[in-house]
Amino acid sequence: MKNKTAIILSSGGLDSTTVMAIAKKENYIIHSLSFNYGQRHLFELDAAKTVAAAYGASHHIVKVDLRPIGGSALTADIDVPKSDIDEIATGSIPVTYVPARNTIFLSYALAWAEVKNATVIFIGVNAIDYSGYPDCRPEFIDAFEKLANLATKAGVEGNKIKIKAPLINMSKAEIIKKGTELGVDYSITHSCYDPSDEGLACGKCDSCILRKKGFSEAGISDPTLYVKSFL
Amino acid sequence: MKNKTAIILSSGGLDSTTVMAIAKKENYIIHSLSFNYGQRHLFELDAAKTVAAAYGASHHIVKVDLRPIGGSALTADIDVPKSDIDEIATGSIPVTYVPARNTIFLSYALAWAEVKNATVIFIGVNAIDYSGYPDCRPEFIDAFEKLANLATKAGVEGNKIKIKAPLINMSKAEIIKKGTELGVDYSITHSCYDPSDEGLACGKCDSCILRKKGFSEAGISDPTLYVKSFL
Repeated sequence: MKNKTAIILSSGGLDSTTVMAIAKKENYIIHSLSFNYGQRHLFELDAAKTVAAAYGASHHIVKVDLRPIGGSALTADIDVPKSDIDEIATGSIPVTYVPARNTIFLSYALAWAEVKNATVIFIGVNAIDYSGYPDCRPEFIDAFEKLANLATKAGVEGNKIKIKAPLINMSKAEIIKKGTELGVDYSITHSCYDPSDEGLACGKCDSCILRKKGFSEAGISDPTLYVKSFL
Repeated sequence: MKNKTAIILSSGGLDSTTVMAIAKKENYIIHSLSFNYGQRHLFELDAAKTVAAAYGASHHIVKVDLRPIGGSALTADIDVPKSDIDEIATGSIPVTYVPARNTIFLSYALAWAEVKNATVIFIGVNAIDYSGYPDCRPEFIDAFEKLANLATKAGVEGNKIKIKAPLINMSKAEIIKKGTELGVDYSITHSCYDPSDEGLACGKCDSCILRKKGFSEAGISDPTLYVKSFL
């Protein structure tokens, strides 16, 4: 059997963990890549480490300094909205958007892919419940794949690089159903933008609301630990 | 007059300094962006700071951690070849190639452009004396521009982002002639891959050889300070 190696961008969240289960099912040797980008909390990096271990993946954290670049409620001192679902509905770009984040993350994944001789990069973006971020759209993924094959030694030498975004056309409920079929334990994942000091989910932010709605629509019980004040 | 703002990727070298002179001539407000990527020496960052000051540009250094990614003589413990001009001639990719470097650098420039409301990013790559790096070719630049306009708020909202690579079709000699016309003081720039402890150029590496050849072909005297053993 051909040796298949993939880089997976992992946030420790619901989506990227489902992607990891999909890649595992497809027999990839997995290198998980996470970013310490000045998030206001580090619970998601802990979750990413736990998830990588659960899938027998190597785990690598790259420290990237987005904080001086600012411009987002996720890295700067802007209040995380409760909720900006209204913005999603009207199609505008919410304040939780981090400038060029997926472009930067995929660029590092590309460098890592070259070093590891991986020709596949998995990313857990989806265009349905995507919160209006421009860099979660299929046309962005396609453009990055074209770039990747022009940018790198592997591309130039004919080992075509694929950017796989298996969730791109799935709703949150469909993602949760797929992951549950593959045996994903969602209790080890972290999605909340604004957790308590103990790492409990707020239940109110954009990310929590999409996640809860997903479990509800999938008819699967939500294993997320929420803060008491929310329950 | 319309307010024009540009991000310029600056290494403190001959090429990016010439680009800065071109942007200055075109009346851009300039934000200079340099990277501390675990280079084995930091003389080029000092040069970048000096160059930004000379052009009245703001200067920003982003620390990016390419060293754990490795894979290049410029960041890892591989000997810098003296010289890999033979590899250039045969079209192969030299060991000084850093995986996905220009993709990562342009991604940060894109994030910075969004924050500064800049719609132009200047990069000093050229495809003639380009040392065989895949991410210095016109098709790479075009692909990044397409990506940039799909990846960002500015692109989505219709403020088209331009990636300008004004040196892309120029030889080193033509670049030096152009810069000299624009009054560039090349003595403040740094190109050497393997300088002495005092920051003097080795005169023997790929980058030094291309630079010296450029001055020679341009018929302009080379202001570079070389190590005594070379002279």
